[in-house]
Amino acid sequence: MWFNTGRKMRVTVFGSSHGLGVGMTMEGIPPGTSIDLEEIKKALERRKPQSSDISTGRKEDDSFEILSGIKGNITDGSPITVFIRNKDIRSGDYGNLKFTPRPGHADYPAMVKYKEGYDERGGSFFSGRMTAPLVICGAICYELLKREGITIGSHIYSIEKIKDKAFDPVTLTKEQLSLLNREFFPLVDKGKEKEMKELIKSVKEDKDSLGGIIECGVTGLSPGLGSPRFMGLDSLIGAVMFSIPGVKGVEFGSGFRGTAFRGSRNNDQYRIKEGRVVALKNNAGGVLGGLSTGMPLLFRVAFKPVASIGREQKTVNLKTMKETVIRVEGRHDPCIVPRAASVVEAACAICLYDEMRYEGLL
Amino acid sequence: MWFNTGRKMRVTVFGSSHGLGVGMTMEGIPPGTSIDLEEIKKALERRKPQSSDISTGRKEDDSFEILSGIKGNITDGSPITVFIRNKDIRSGDYGNLKFTPRPGHADYPAMVKYKEGYDERGGSFFSGRMTAPLVICGAICYELLKREGITIGSHIYSIEKIKDKAFDPVTLTKEQLSLLNREFFPLVDKGKEKEMKELIKSVKEDKDSLGGIIECGVTGLSPGLGSPRFMGLDSLIGAVMFSIPGVKGVEFGSGFRGTAFRGSRNNDQYRIKEGRVVALKNNAGGVLGGLSTGMPLLFRVAFKPVASIGREQKTVNLKTMKETVIRVEGRHDPCIVPRAASVVEAACAICLYDEMRYEGLL
Amino acid sequence: MWFNTGRKMRVTVFGSSHGLGVGMTMEGIPPGTSIDLEEIKKALERRKPQSSDISTGRKEDDSFEILSGIKGNITDGSPITVFIRNKDIRSGDYGNLKFTPRPGHADYPAMVKYKEGYDERGGSFFSGRMTAPLVICGAICYELLKREGITIGSHIYSIEKIKDKAFDPVTLTKEQLSLLNREFFPLVDKGKEKEMKELIKSVKEDKDSLGGIIECGVTGLSPGLGSPRFMGLDSLIGAVMFSIPGVKGVEFGSGFRGTAFRGSRNNDQYRIKEGRVVALKNNAGGVLGGLSTGMPLLFRVAFKPVASIGREQKTVNLKTMKETVIRVEGRHDPCIVPRAASVVEAACAICLYDEMRYEGLL
Amino acid sequence: MWFNTGRKMRVTVFGSSHGLGVGMTMEGIPPGTSIDLEEIKKALERRKPQSSDISTGRKEDDSFEILSGIKGNITDGSPITVFIRNKDIRSGDYGNLKFTPRPGHADYPAMVKYKEGYDERGGSFFSGRMTAPLVICGAICYELLKREGITIGSHIYSIEKIKDKAFDPVTLTKEQLSLLNREFFPLVDKGKEKEMKELIKSVKEDKDSLGGIIECGVTGLSPGLGSPRFMGLDSLIGAVMFSIPGVKGVEFGSGFRGTAFRGSRNNDQYRIKEGRVVALKNNAGGVLGGLSTGMPLLFRVAFKPVASIGREQKTVNLKTMKETVIRVEGRHDPCIVPRAASVVEAACAICLYDEMRYEGLL
Repeated sequence: MWFNTGRKMRVTVFGSSHGLGVGMTMEGIPPGTSIDLEEIKKALERRKPQSSDISTGRKEDDSFEILSGIKGNITDGSPITVFIRNKDIRSGDYGNLKFTPRPGHADYPAMVKYKEGYDERGGSFFSGRMTAPLVICGAICYELLKREGITIGSHIYSIEKIKDKAFDPVTLTKEQLSLLNREFFPLVDKGKEKEMKELIKSVKEDKDSLGGIIECGVTGLSPGLGSPRFMGLDSLIGAVMFSIPGVKGVEFGSGFRGTAFRGSRNNDQYRIKEGRVVALKNNAGGVLGGLSTGMPLLFRVAFKPVASIGREQKTVNLKTMKETVIRVEGRHDPCIVPRAASVVEAACAICLYDEMRYEGLL
Repeated sequence: MWFNTGRKMRVTVFGSSHGLGVGMTMEGIPPGTSIDLEEIKKALERRKPQSSDISTGRKEDDSFEILSGIKGNITDGSPITVFIRNKDIRSGDYGNLKFTPRPGHADYPAMVKYKEGYDERGGSFFSGRMTAPLVICGAICYELLKREGITIGSHIYSIEKIKDKAFDPVTLTKEQLSLLNREFFPLVDKGKEKEMKELIKSVKEDKDSLGGIIECGVTGLSPGLGSPRFMGLDSLIGAVMFSIPGVKGVEFGSGFRGTAFRGSRNNDQYRIKEGRVVALKNNAGGVLGGLSTGMPLLFRVAFKPVASIGREQKTVNLKTMKETVIRVEGRHDPCIVPRAASVVEAACAICLYDEMRYEGLL
Repeated sequence: MWFNTGRKMRVTVFGSSHGLGVGMTMEGIPPGTSIDLEEIKKALERRKPQSSDISTGRKEDDSFEILSGIKGNITDGSPITVFIRNKDIRSGDYGNLKFTPRPGHADYPAMVKYKEGYDERGGSFFSGRMTAPLVICGAICYELLKREGITIGSHIYSIEKIKDKAFDPVTLTKEQLSLLNREFFPLVDKGKEKEMKELIKSVKEDKDSLGGIIECGVTGLSPGLGSPRFMGLDSLIGAVMFSIPGVKGVEFGSGFRGTAFRGSRNNDQYRIKEGRVVALKNNAGGVLGGLSTGMPLLFRVAFKPVASIGREQKTVNLKTMKETVIRVEGRHDPCIVPRAASVVEAACAICLYDEMRYEGLL
Repeated sequence: MWFNTGRKMRVTVFGSSHGLGVGMTMEGIPPGTSIDLEEIKKALERRKPQSSDISTGRKEDDSFEILSGIKGNITDGSPITVFIRNKDIRSGDYGNLKFTPRPGHADYPAMVKYKEGYDERGGSFFSGRMTAPLVICGAICYELLKREGITIGSHIYSIEKIKDKAFDPVTLTKEQLSLLNREFFPLVDKGKEKEMKELIKSVKEDKDSLGGIIECGVTGLSPGLGSPRFMGLDSLIGAVMFSIPGVKGVEFGSGFRGTAFRGSRNNDQYRIKEGRVVALKNNAGGVLGGLSTGMPLLFRVAFKPVASIGREQKTVNLKTMKETVIRVEGRHDPCIVPRAASVVEAACAICLYDEMRYEGLL
């Protein structure tokens, strides 16, 4: 359960949703680096469930303890280990899940694989709660990237069929991203917020759930960052995004839509602008051959609708091997897309930091 | 330029398009394993350029030499190293590329990063030719997976806007995949072949290029294969797919489209069928929480239109920093999607073999 | 600060001597494995300082908290994270060390490398205290090895010039090792205990310190365990042993002494005994070409005398760059060799468990 | 069969003694680096069998082909693959070895493990011939280290009981090492050459073999190079040394002998000399806590006597499970210690280069 490119960064996420807590151990941050713990708190705050009408009722204050690696606010060069104790656990809610996998959840393959080791309550270590330590790790990486002029931000590209305005792949700015990555409901077109929130509310009442797409952008990358082939920027980012619970698709630049373009349209031709090479378009999404092109890095991440819904669904009891029905009564978000923005940004920061460290650029 | 999950399989792809040749070193195949070299040849044959009206005119016989690891046709437990010498190289074709990056290609970031080390002729180690050793590696892995009842096959899901019939995510069979993975132009609906080939031909004449989507399916995986989080099946497959030249998107199951479904629709409910747990749908694409569900594994890979086109495109000369134009005169495929099927299958085989070996299942 | 063969086991040791505590995160233990926590406690007990006349006065109860990965006493398949909070810290003792490296300690290179990140008190993460989490990890691995009939044990081969009776490399038994690995002062010839302890006591009074050699043996390994070359059993064990504070040498079988033998004497000739192949001698120490021979695995680990001594020693103040003297007043063992036995055994268990898991034998 | 610290350098050694050839693939050398191929040739020359009266009669010209990664003499950033075809193979010599393991060789565990995959002729991939690609890899690394002022050299510390003069651990110079690392029979005290060579000659006539110790020194390392704990300089070097065929022991500084010193004697006290911190002794061998101290790095590597001897030895036939005798008739060195110097230096260079690259110092 580690992010380990076999290089600079080594991150192990541990713990589980209904155990003692969740945490992570990371290596690769040089000694003597100052870390602003407030930034970590802010990042965790964005990931937390929001107002109860559009989010889960579970309350976690997500206060973390730094067990190792940071003294005061300075890294000492040893692994950084951070732990968040679980507090608001209502295990009773999950009593009926012991042998009945929730449709759409990791329950079924996990029950087969881990047997008694799998804690059906809240999905054990498959829980979305595991993204809290990921956000901590990402916040640390992002702080260090920011000092190099790199900015990461994302917005809710869509919830169900309601679409935000897409990023402009050429003119996307650091300023735009910096504003977005502070927001709890990040949108390019703020006008969509009401409509989206109302949809979420109504779907919640309807005991159903929603999916959506996060679009993430990065500015400030010089051309040529990345390693070719299996360790390309897109491979790294792709791998980590698919490790976020609920992600079913990742695309860069024109992505799937671009498969219907011809080369003459999709290719980003080059120009000189103020003495620098620029592309007139950015269908590549800022990455070619696994290397950054110097244009904004742009990718979209597809989140399926949340699996846990209050409606009756057909399932089976794996012990009796009889068909049955289930209603997932736990406190769940009807739509995790708004909260996912912080997770996507964190995961992206880890990849970029690892690559820059690996290349000796940081 | 290695695939290295830090586990069983270690694959290094080496060489370049216009150097001495291309090859690979792989570790992780147990000693005493018989390898059918004919299967490797067949896989390479499928990857090769096809009839010249729809493909590049470059002729490579792709005959390979096994430098290490296989005696007769039995592995000896040491690393398997295979080398394919380049033959039909016309470097003259690329003379005008020295400092003028081809739009849509890795040229620009690679020239910035590798400077003189980058061989602009044919894209050096960013060339699609690097997928030949990948196909060899995949063919070896696939042979061993087949012996365990696992079948991998893919088809041309779309070329530009022409769509093949999609795989049925529930009823997809081993037989269907076994037929497809032998074909040079694999389609579920053979009726689309003529239309697609004519499109390719006309686009070739038009000095333009096409993209498309490969849909890949796998049957025979037991539920619970995979490692959670960063090493999930989808993370592994995602990472390797993005390392294939031209890939801009990867999605599993209902993927991007599924973000517009509600949970009640997207969730795959369970039933008992002939004493076994089955899902009635397969929107998950056979993977949940990084683990196989036992349903067919299903993913789609988006290939952008080929970057090299004979049309005039705007670019810059990186030495003079002046704007200029380029026409890519080399012999190129107008559409690599048909050939890509073999590469996608090979890359998938490497991931699955690695995971099964890692879990001690093989 | 990880043990990571890039394979099954991944161990990160974190924390520091004078910080919040020390701990470790390990991956690679299958879900559903029962772990006897009493065995961990016993192993920690052996590593702990002993009666104060021959050991440090520092009292650590070494009670650990399992933050992740074990529920009750069953592993759940997620990373196992264990934390030991530091208690008996007297930082005052180290006040004079801020810029004056202790001779023989990691202080000097660590102060140069980590600057302010380095906590001179107790050697930060270079402290011998970091072996406590290693012992926990080893105890878990050893439990699982024992179930496969593998026994690891060690004895105090020598303290200064007082030598215990060496292991018989051919007739060494499981029974002998099982007894030794429970003892706090493990010796083949118990008659040496008094002499050794008196030496330690007198050296302690003399404000000096002692080194010595641990000899470790393993029975129950089938022939052929190991990976050739860089991942051979001896390479793995060698690497981990040199990571134990104070270790300056490792040798297998006849080791350094064997360099003075001729091939005709050093080679272990083979015989058939009760239907099995046996070697008549075991100068190889049970490993040839990185692979186990089926004879007892035998190696010796050289511990230099403890660096911290109460005597005045010459050193420099790195801030003023002036020469000065130092007396290390902290509570230190005059000889860590007896306690080191448990650490050597633990480190050996981790290596063997990793290899067996990697080879799918466990 | 890779050296893979999970970091910058990735080296896979492939091939076998009696197959098509031996080779290696390495990653981690930056693009645009000039490599002096003559230096590689010189290093291989030193590793080669020498005058036939003291060495094996096998003639290998060891001419290598660079398959990938170097154009002209400049690296292109892709993996460097080098292949040496085997030429002078007399398989007939090994005919009687099919099921009869040679005592002291990896034969027995390798036959058990690899079964038919194991090529008993010359030891397959356990052969000393596998060190030829290691020497190539080391020569490349060493060239780049030399440019940073680092010098590696070694001498024959002992053959059987004949001892050369040991390195002075404090005053060892770059000049002394530079001279030694060009020599074919490197000695501090040239007066010992005749005696040693005569011993080798007489032992060869006697159909027996000799072992010995290589002492290796490194100058030019700044204090603080290395990673703590499992990736310390001594752990890295230890692991790689044990992967060299025939190595049974590794020690740093005062090593095994130092276990009989007291702390007051073994500790290296510090002084200021010409404005820099120096240690007055170097019992640490230049490494403390896994980090370089800035004093010369010093270690000794124990080589057992060569296993292949022409004398009759007892062994067993693994097929018939009957006892038998064997005389190893192949062409073998009676003492590989002189040739081993180049291998030890190469292996050391790989470790140091990897660490310096990892730390971004190179």
